[in-house]
Amino acid sequence: MISKRFYSWGSLLTIILLTFTLPTTSFAQTNHANNKPYTDIAREIIRTALAEGQAYHLLAELTALGPRLSGSPQAAAAVEWSRHTMARLGFQNVRLQEVMVPHWVRGPIEEAAIINSATMGTIPLTVCALGGSVATPEMGVVAEVVEVKSFDELKTLGKKAEGKIIFFNRPMDPTKINTFEAYGGAVDQRGSGAIEAAKVGGIAALVRSMTTRLDDVPHTGGMQYQDGVPKVPAAAISTVGANLLSQLLAQEKTVRVRLKLTCQTFPDAPSANVLGELTGTEKSEEIIVVGGHLDSWDKGTGAHDDGAGCVQSLEALRLLQALKLKPKRTIRAVMFINEENGLRGGEAYAREAATSKEKHIAAIEADRGGFAPRGFSVDTDSTRFARLAGWSYLFEEIDAEKIFRGGGGADISPLVRQGVPGIGLVPEPQRYFDYHHSDNDVIAAVNERELNLGAAALAILCYVLAQEGL
Amino acid sequence: MISKRFYSWGSLLTIILLTFTLPTTSFAQTNHANNKPYTDIAREIIRTALAEGQAYHLLAELTALGPRLSGSPQAAAAVEWSRHTMARLGFQNVRLQEVMVPHWVRGPIEEAAIINSATMGTIPLTVCALGGSVATPEMGVVAEVVEVKSFDELKTLGKKAEGKIIFFNRPMDPTKINTFEAYGGAVDQRGSGAIEAAKVGGIAALVRSMTTRLDDVPHTGGMQYQDGVPKVPAAAISTVGANLLSQLLAQEKTVRVRLKLTCQTFPDAPSANVLGELTGTEKSEEIIVVGGHLDSWDKGTGAHDDGAGCVQSLEALRLLQALKLKPKRTIRAVMFINEENGLRGGEAYAREAATSKEKHIAAIEADRGGFAPRGFSVDTDSTRFARLAGWSYLFEEIDAEKIFRGGGGADISPLVRQGVPGIGLVPEPQRYFDYHHSDNDVIAAVNERELNLGAAALAILCYVLAQEGL
Repeated sequence: MISKRFYSWGSLLTIILLTFTLPTTSFAQTNHANNKPYTDIAREIIRTALAEGQAYHLLAELTALGPRLSGSPQAAAAVEWSRHTMARLGFQNVRLQEVMVPHWVRGPIEEAAIINSATMGTIPLTVCALGGSVATPEMGVVAEVVEVKSFDELKTLGKKAEGKIIFFNRPMDPTKINTFEAYGGAVDQRGSGAIEAAKVGGIAALVRSMTTRLDDVPHTGGMQYQDGVPKVPAAAISTVGANLLSQLLAQEKTVRVRLKLTCQTFPDAPSANVLGELTGTEKSEEIIVVGGHLDSWDKGTGAHDDGAGCVQSLEALRLLQALKLKPKRTIRAVMFINEENGLRGGEAYAREAATSKEKHIAAIEADRGGFAPRGFSVDTDSTRFARLAGWSYLFEEIDAEKIFRGGGGADISPLVRQGVPGIGLVPEPQRYFDYHHSDNDVIAAVNERELNLGAAALAILCYVLAQEGL
Repeated sequence: MISKRFYSWGSLLTIILLTFTLPTTSFAQTNHANNKPYTDIAREIIRTALAEGQAYHLLAELTALGPRLSGSPQAAAAVEWSRHTMARLGFQNVRLQEVMVPHWVRGPIEEAAIINSATMGTIPLTVCALGGSVATPEMGVVAEVVEVKSFDELKTLGKKAEGKIIFFNRPMDPTKINTFEAYGGAVDQRGSGAIEAAKVGGIAALVRSMTTRLDDVPHTGGMQYQDGVPKVPAAAISTVGANLLSQLLAQEKTVRVRLKLTCQTFPDAPSANVLGELTGTEKSEEIIVVGGHLDSWDKGTGAHDDGAGCVQSLEALRLLQALKLKPKRTIRAVMFINEENGLRGGEAYAREAATSKEKHIAAIEADRGGFAPRGFSVDTDSTRFARLAGWSYLFEEIDAEKIFRGGGGADISPLVRQGVPGIGLVPEPQRYFDYHHSDNDVIAAVNERELNLGAAALAILCYVLAQEGL
């Protein structure tokens, strides 16, 4: 199969084989509408993005609104900002796609987790409620802590877990080169820790933050409850805090923690996806979607997650427009709402797409941070995959030519389930989880040139798809 | 030619051709000494670097010593730290290679540059002397400013330049995808600006900082004087300051600046390269050098430039040792001194190498920042280049498989002139000049995982070279 190892010496036979099976138009393909080879167009897009890019400026505006958790005033402001910005940039058919979203808030009073140790006295931990958690009682919960590395280990504890705070402390595997793989191998603790803790009689869940960095910043994120299982409060502690707590547990017979959370869940609130287009000149009913999600967690200002993907998508359309490149098919920027704790925006978009007369050619999502692009992760059949891989030469100049099989992104996943090819922009992954869902995720952590290169990669791909279809 | 575009669809014929001309041993080559394919060894090195890497810890120690300008007490401390660290890590033949280095200091009194504008009054500019500059008179120099974008433009000014402060304001070209290329296209202003200013009667040179970022941090760096041309003081101003000054010059007839520098040049000072080895088990007289430069500028703490390259080189040897990989040929880590303002260390090393009985197989330098590695830049003949390119599959897993033609690095350039193949570690280049030679270059700007991946890439390359030769 064509895979991530596409270009290796070891896969040379595959490449040679493909040379004779791929359409020869892949070589130095010309965009007849503009009478220019795509390589020249790609180069113009890249140069314009680097010399006159607006993505960073847009990101500064967006993040200045504050964190954009679904249902918050800041999220509402971001919806308005997006609509206004698309109109200002001259996109066509700018509109809101209304949808109800969950409305959870961290609560009015400062969160707290305090260790009470026989030898060390009281030690405060930096802590943050996981998104969707219930509050603790007003005085907090106080209980002994039991540490586990997995749900299987938790199940072996039996009576020992009853009445305890369950501490999930399995780190992201540092040996995974792709940090998203390491995240996937640890995030069950955050997502289902509260359920599993409650099932064995635990009264709260503390989860080691999902990050590859050792620091004192807690990382929040989504979590679930399950019908029929008591809802217990759940919070993340920093990696430094988790190591400290683990060390104390190893040294002392019992360590108690007081946890106080004041989270509240309100009725669903009105919100919206924001859509805007470069309408196709020939097949306007054929759509290429490019987007990110407008909502963020309530820590930091969602600069990488996913302010970056939003402004890169806006910038992709702006670049094509600035270069007077008129797409044959419609390129639609979509600012999805509620990726973080509900996916209501992505679902609403797919619902409408299923009943419309439009045909979705492909959906592209940028939601892995605004780092230097390395390529695209593609979820489609072999024929379309080979066609996309044949365009990889257009991304070589910016070292973003790796085309491999994989998921496109959460917001577009409902579309992909309907058969639309899904494509994810894949940037350099090493730093993402330093920032993800935490106070570290601010614009100072974003490099303007890296952000611009990602926007250029999106613009090139959108344009080729708009001209050639898939 | 095999080039950076090695893997493009467009160069497929080249690849196919090479398939039949390269030694077939490139495929799944086995290291017979360990009876393991190199792919397995590479994977072990990568995993160990990510799980138990020491590079970041070493960098924390090194940067804690402060900036390490040649001749400074901190540079002397860094030499001692390197010797001590190599010994502690169990390297063999740890020794100093003594050399005299230039000894320039920024001076005891705060530097200053103050704009005096008719409409705006006095405005202070953040400023720093270029390395090697003479001081101004005690009261500073005060003069009208003339802005130019090039030496050619300067030469057309005639009398208008006499008695003026010459302001060199050509930015690094943002459209260059490789920031080092953009640096190369602008750095003549910093290196020779003082000479060219003096030749036309200018009394000082102000240079726009060599950075791709717009901020208020000035970046220093090396500059030269020329025999027979008056030595005038030279300083860098930030990109924000340069834009402001340029704008004022466009609006007002005359803008005056007062510049005060208190730099001093002392007699050359004793210093040293630091060397340590994993001695080869079969051909110990055949040497693979891997190194970075220990000195830095006196701004920031030289974390990326070149603390990163130093600790990655140390870590490369440590990783091989930790995995009990015994190289057939000798792998020598070299902490070069005085790359920034003299290259005395690199020259001394090459001088000794020329007269020794040792044979240098290759020299590898890491001096482009501690970012995620993308490959290697190689300066050697076609046969050796093809052999190196044949090993690129070992770096694929970490996306560092690009092998292309280019310079190795300044410290190893005297060795390369003696015929030794030179190889430079090439990391992601977008962020480097945000930090380079400025207060921004501190350990907080370095990501531990990216640093570790670079060290792993060096370790893999060193080991293969030690086993296979070149």
